[in-house]
Amino acid sequence: KINADRLWDSLMEMAKIGPGVAGGNNRQTLTDEDGEGRALFQKWCEAVGCTMGLDSMGNMFAELAGTDPDALPVYVGSHLDTQPTGGKYDGVLGVLGGLEILRTMKDLGIKTKHPIVVTNWTNEEGTRYAPAMLASGVFAGVHTEEWAYAKEDADGKTFGSELDRIGWKGDEPVGARKDKMHAFFELHIEQGPILEAEGKDIGVVTHGQGLSWTQVTVTGKDSHTGSTPMPMRKNAGLGMARILNKVDEIAWSHKPHAVGAAGHIDVYPNSRNVIPGKVVFTVDFRSPDLSVIEDMEARLRVDAQAICNEMGLGVEFEKVGGFDPVTFDEGCVSAVRAAAERLGYSHMNLISGAGHDACWINKCAPTAMVMCPCVDGLSHNEAEEISKEWASAGTDVLMHAVLETAQI
Amino acid sequence: KINADRLWDSLMEMAKIGPGVAGGNNRQTLTDEDGEGRALFQKWCEAVGCTMGLDSMGNMFAELAGTDPDALPVYVGSHLDTQPTGGKYDGVLGVLGGLEILRTMKDLGIKTKHPIVVTNWTNEEGTRYAPAMLASGVFAGVHTEEWAYAKEDADGKTFGSELDRIGWKGDEPVGARKDKMHAFFELHIEQGPILEAEGKDIGVVTHGQGLSWTQVTVTGKDSHTGSTPMPMRKNAGLGMARILNKVDEIAWSHKPHAVGAAGHIDVYPNSRNVIPGKVVFTVDFRSPDLSVIEDMEARLRVDAQAICNEMGLGVEFEKVGGFDPVTFDEGCVSAVRAAAERLGYSHMNLISGAGHDACWINKCAPTAMVMCPCVDGLSHNEAEEISKEWASAGTDVLMHAVLETAQI
Ligand SMILES: NC(=O)NCCC(=O)O
Ligand SMILES: NC(=O)NCCC(=O)O
Repeated sequence: KINADRLWDSLMEMAKIGPGVAGGNNRQTLTDEDGEGRALFQKWCEAVGCTMGLDSMGNMFAELAGTDPDALPVYVGSHLDTQPTGGKYDGVLGVLGGLEILRTMKDLGIKTKHPIVVTNWTNEEGTRYAPAMLASGVFAGVHTEEWAYAKEDADGKTFGSELDRIGWKGDEPVGARKDKMHAFFELHIEQGPILEAEGKDIGVVTHGQGLSWTQVTVTGKDSHTGSTPMPMRKNAGLGMARILNKVDEIAWSHKPHAVGAAGHIDVYPNSRNVIPGKVVFTVDFRSPDLSVIEDMEARLRVDAQAICNEMGLGVEFEKVGGFDPVTFDEGCVSAVRAAAERLGYSHMNLISGAGHDACWINKCAPTAMVMCPCVDGLSHNEAEEISKEWASAGTDVLMHAVLETAQI
Repeated sequence: KINADRLWDSLMEMAKIGPGVAGGNNRQTLTDEDGEGRALFQKWCEAVGCTMGLDSMGNMFAELAGTDPDALPVYVGSHLDTQPTGGKYDGVLGVLGGLEILRTMKDLGIKTKHPIVVTNWTNEEGTRYAPAMLASGVFAGVHTEEWAYAKEDADGKTFGSELDRIGWKGDEPVGARKDKMHAFFELHIEQGPILEAEGKDIGVVTHGQGLSWTQVTVTGKDSHTGSTPMPMRKNAGLGMARILNKVDEIAWSHKPHAVGAAGHIDVYPNSRNVIPGKVVFTVDFRSPDLSVIEDMEARLRVDAQAICNEMGLGVEFEKVGGFDPVTFDEGCVSAVRAAAERLGYSHMNLISGAGHDACWINKCAPTAMVMCPCVDGLSHNEAEEISKEWASAGTDVLMHAVLETAQI
């Protein structure tokens, strides 16, 4: 078993970098704080005897050599970046859980045939730069690096220039490893309420639901809130409001197999006495069923167009992110389940509600995920919480699945 | 008659300060650009022989002496600050129209018994610091100076510190003049469609409609857009959307005597994959009928509370601005109408749809307003437009009303 206190202490140490305003973290991708978090992770990895690889998307690969020079590495990891008002565990547990495996191996003198590589994938969260899981997506060949470099944050700073600025753009071509992976395992907090409600220690993640992000731009006409008669208004804010109601209706219509909401809404010019001339917002639809996602996406476009036509508003749609539902590798999933069994942890199968780097890496290598519960299913909130026991059970299972796959 | 070309050239000269992105202006209150605009106005006023008074709220008073040392001044003016995406005429026409009167008097050697004071009132727009008409409100004794100084912009900078910073806080106690005003006249563009539609040169403003600004804070719970089941969501964004629909419904229910909308909406944490935990927005209701405003305000609170209760959301209300419907002074209104008659301009009575400094100054002195048409009734938009003829007709009428009141 892993050292639960050491794992927890490292989680708390990392959480000091980029503290939030309410006990969580704001360590968004490619900020100075992201750079600090990376440096701490690198220091820790080097202390257990790893060499650090860094690719041109900033993905980090801490490698512990195996006994067979010809054996392909087993990868394990997640991400260190957070939401602007994020928790201390989302992503971080998966990276530091991977590190804890290496530390435990060192303690116990365990060697594996296959090398073990602990990864930190750049920009998983997708807040500063949409889409989410950007760098694992480029690694997996889903997006081009050029396209990713050109992505702009809200201040117009590009991904490429910010990666350069924080000093974490590596020489290794992104994706160079993608056909040389023996397997990939990712430990993550559930971010949903199921495990806690069912009283299970471990989620054996068999599938991931798919996602569609549509950026909607509603165009009206800025005008005076006082002196513009009601019939003459082209209120883009009211158009947005009606579309948001429709988004909710569409998601409920596929109950219980779909969710939908908008987390991002920008209103222009955002002045109390100006009828909004433009609103830009992003609709997030998810389902484990691809046809449901496609249906929701299509209905959004038709219904939003109808709403805007009726109100004399313009509307444009841009798909800014998405991935299809994922089925993880049977062998890797079995390794996770067997590890939980062997260790005596209660477990159940889960479909991941969130997207993860594992969803993209599943395209390059046999992949599976381990999940542990989180309090009230709450995530993407500074109050996100897990217990030390949940963290260590998840990491135990992760270690056993990894060691079995990497062959002791 | 005034010099139409000179007036127009000055309007264009002022518009060079704080240019917008689409042909209009962004010269928000207490910015460096506001300071530059003030300096230019002061230079112009001094060139016609005025002395400049400056009060502790930054209100500017350019005084041209009268022939009777005991006669109270006639005030004329408006504001030089603009919306973030504002036009070149909203407010500016009223200030530079006042200046043009002084220039014309100088050209023609006209002297009046009463002094004439051209004013620039600070922060009329209310975008950076709510409420609108802040400094004329303090001048009129509606708000305290302390309260105004403490107002914060979106970056947390206070009105008091920014007024200091740009160097336009004067020694004269605000409101010192308020019981020593013979009359006040304000020329403004209509900002609505009526004059143009009716083919009239001049609006004789008999009343102003009242306003109520309620800031609404809806509180939900930040959580993951993917892994939070629909029934567990506390989506403050969806709550806001439903309230906005209700605001529209409430305003239409009083057709044609009310308007309602929200121009300002801030979503937190504003990340694509976080269900909004908080939304702050401001509802703007207006009507010429006080009981209608009171009804709309009350219904907003009841209906928004019901919406939020049903959705498990919290909601708070704060009244951040407002004024009752205004009836302007009969004598001053008659002076405006008589001037339009005498000059042969077509005219009609109007109720101002927007708030103006004149609405507050009406509490201290006999007050009236002159309005000129604007293209398509469009204002609070960089594309706001008027013709040189409309500007000069309005300024002619303003001058005749002022000169008659100040006694040549
Ligand atoms: N796990 C996680 O929160 N990933 C961010 C991408 C998503 O929105 O699902
Ligand atoms: N005239 C004008 O636009 N004033 C701003 C205050 C208001 O919203 O009416």
